[in-house]
Amino acid sequence: MSLIVQKYGGTSVADLERIRNVAKRVAKTYDQGNNVVVILSAMAGVTDDLIDMASQICESPSKRELDVLLATGEQTTAALLAITLKNMNYPALSMLGHQAKVVTDCTFGDARIIEIGTEYFIGLINKRNIIVVAGFQGCDIKGNITTLGRGGSDTSAVAIASALKADLCEIYTDVDGIYSADPNICEKARKIDKISYDEMLNMASLGAKVLQIRSVGFAKKYNVPVHVRSSFTEEEGTMVVSEDAGMESLIVSAVTHDKDQARITLKKVHDQPGVAAKIFSPIAEAGIVVDMIIQNTRAQGQTDLTFTVPKKDFQAAIEIERKVADEIGAVDVLGDKNIAKVSVVGVGMKNHSGVASIMFNTLARENINIIMISTSEIRISCVIEEKYTELAVRVLHTAFGLDKED
Amino acid sequence: MSLIVQKYGGTSVADLERIRNVAKRVAKTYDQGNNVVVILSAMAGVTDDLIDMASQICESPSKRELDVLLATGEQTTAALLAITLKNMNYPALSMLGHQAKVVTDCTFGDARIIEIGTEYFIGLINKRNIIVVAGFQGCDIKGNITTLGRGGSDTSAVAIASALKADLCEIYTDVDGIYSADPNICEKARKIDKISYDEMLNMASLGAKVLQIRSVGFAKKYNVPVHVRSSFTEEEGTMVVSEDAGMESLIVSAVTHDKDQARITLKKVHDQPGVAAKIFSPIAEAGIVVDMIIQNTRAQGQTDLTFTVPKKDFQAAIEIERKVADEIGAVDVLGDKNIAKVSVVGVGMKNHSGVASIMFNTLARENINIIMISTSEIRISCVIEEKYTELAVRVLHTAFGLDKED
Repeated sequence: MSLIVQKYGGTSVADLERIRNVAKRVAKTYDQGNNVVVILSAMAGVTDDLIDMASQICESPSKRELDVLLATGEQTTAALLAITLKNMNYPALSMLGHQAKVVTDCTFGDARIIEIGTEYFIGLINKRNIIVVAGFQGCDIKGNITTLGRGGSDTSAVAIASALKADLCEIYTDVDGIYSADPNICEKARKIDKISYDEMLNMASLGAKVLQIRSVGFAKKYNVPVHVRSSFTEEEGTMVVSEDAGMESLIVSAVTHDKDQARITLKKVHDQPGVAAKIFSPIAEAGIVVDMIIQNTRAQGQTDLTFTVPKKDFQAAIEIERKVADEIGAVDVLGDKNIAKVSVVGVGMKNHSGVASIMFNTLARENINIIMISTSEIRISCVIEEKYTELAVRVLHTAFGLDKED
Repeated sequence: MSLIVQKYGGTSVADLERIRNVAKRVAKTYDQGNNVVVILSAMAGVTDDLIDMASQICESPSKRELDVLLATGEQTTAALLAITLKNMNYPALSMLGHQAKVVTDCTFGDARIIEIGTEYFIGLINKRNIIVVAGFQGCDIKGNITTLGRGGSDTSAVAIASALKADLCEIYTDVDGIYSADPNICEKARKIDKISYDEMLNMASLGAKVLQIRSVGFAKKYNVPVHVRSSFTEEEGTMVVSEDAGMESLIVSAVTHDKDQARITLKKVHDQPGVAAKIFSPIAEAGIVVDMIIQNTRAQGQTDLTFTVPKKDFQAAIEIERKVADEIGAVDVLGDKNIAKVSVVGVGMKNHSGVASIMFNTLARENINIIMISTSEIRISCVIEEKYTELAVRVLHTAFGLDKED
């Protein structure tokens, strides 16, 4: 008898009809002789509506209380699915975060799971109960309700799967798997059958739309096999697993892009200790996440320093840096919102040289200028002009042999 | 420094604007130097909407899961009020039923409070925090979420007030107090300044619209002074307190009526031991609440037995009794839905004779026939034809000197 954890996202539980479909799928898995634990998101749109309601009260609602408010979304779907399953004569039981003993730190709005108490849980599962857990929520050691951040139900699912030593964690969503590129841009994109945790972690911009990236880190750490698939079809999706010999032998698994980037350059910064801290500390304090940082070769003790931030933070970041530039005596602050990041990702890179050179040559052939470059062990990212994004994705997809056969 | 528990009903928290008004009222009480605990209902209509949603899934949703669903209503308002108060720089903190340690039995949908853990609670209050408790909900000893039945937030408030030994429990609602009769029927009805617990308990039909009757029993048991008042005005409402010398010296405090009554008569029942049990056991098993029971004087070992049930249960009850009549050999089963109960209530009755005779004479003068009579120490109720209800209330209100002065 296997234990299968199934997570259903907001579009899969968007109304009572879809909840009924989820119930049928859960029942089918159960009837096949598996034990089943279900993790649910809130109905699509509900979390946004609740945030909107709170922000009508004030700009920065109390984070503790916002979590109490948001937690109602998953509580509602968990109760509704349990009602549906019970009505179909299945022994279902809902559990909220604190009932499932999902203990987190006390970072309201973006809490990290510390541990999951499993004793009571496993007792119920062994009695063949179907446990329906409200995702996205937990409680800190004082019993305060916490939430796990956007897409947190994925992390709930993987964490619970790992705590229960589940055989499989299925993530049901509204797309049928992870693609080798965004199919809206690249019509030759293929659904990937199997991908490693590390590749998923490097595919934030493609993957995060499907799976909360933090949940992948969790899955990797505890080696939980994750199956990302659609709740609207019976098709197999994408298995996210640890890297193994059976992995596809492609050098590059996917081409990703991210248009949510803006670039800021400080010209002629004095290249001396402590300057980088002066530039980035106020950015961090403003809660702005810096992605790439490039420091050009210095000349006469001066250097140009360039970094990227999300587009929404561009205005705030550039204002901060203008002040910083005055303090540290930088000559100028330049900004550019018309950029995008294009990346190729693949564990195969580790054993193949020449990936970077194929990438640069491919872009050069299309006269696409590379503005910034950054690399990891299994990823190469180039910042280019935004208008070339779609073209770049398509030509790279072809160049690395990813195009699906017709 | 006093501790004041304030409960706000669904219409008082029906939208963000009204929640802001509640926050102002809470803040004012706090600023006057009081410690304040707030108990909230769900926004008006929300509980009904949730029940409606569940009943779209099936006719009899799992009671356990329905409670999980319904509990979201009060969770939402508690979070929203806490957000509002925090934004006004008051140290507010929401608490759900299980966080406030409202421990109940496990009768889902209609749970009874067993105890309330106060240690943590009192610690927070003593640090001058304003605790905003989600009303209507608790948890059983296993940690399952329970709800306290319709109007349960009143009981939450009174129970918490008694556990915390609060100086006062204010029940804010959309009416400005308890009236000597329904003002919609009797325009001379007066707002009652002070009324005893016992009178309130006997005024179910008037009072239950304003205050869950169970909460009054709780208030009486623990001697919690309850102030029923409107959240939309600054007017004093009605104090519900233990009977004392300072009580108004009226013989009758109020005239109540209840049109939600139907009458069933079993004709010529054999008057022998065990018959009453045969008649009422199946009614009780069907979950139907019987109000009045009258057994006429017997003649030749046979008697007529009449009782009343809520109108909604009339059809079910009469079908049950037709079967019972066959079994026990009763001659006929008659029913009548066109009846109403009119009552006069007052602690003064205990020391005054003649109340019944005034009541009967007053009704007789208007040619209103009395179909059934029942009495308690401080109440006399008459069942009459429904069409005379308004007239009966008005003439009794005048006869007992309750009319307000112009």
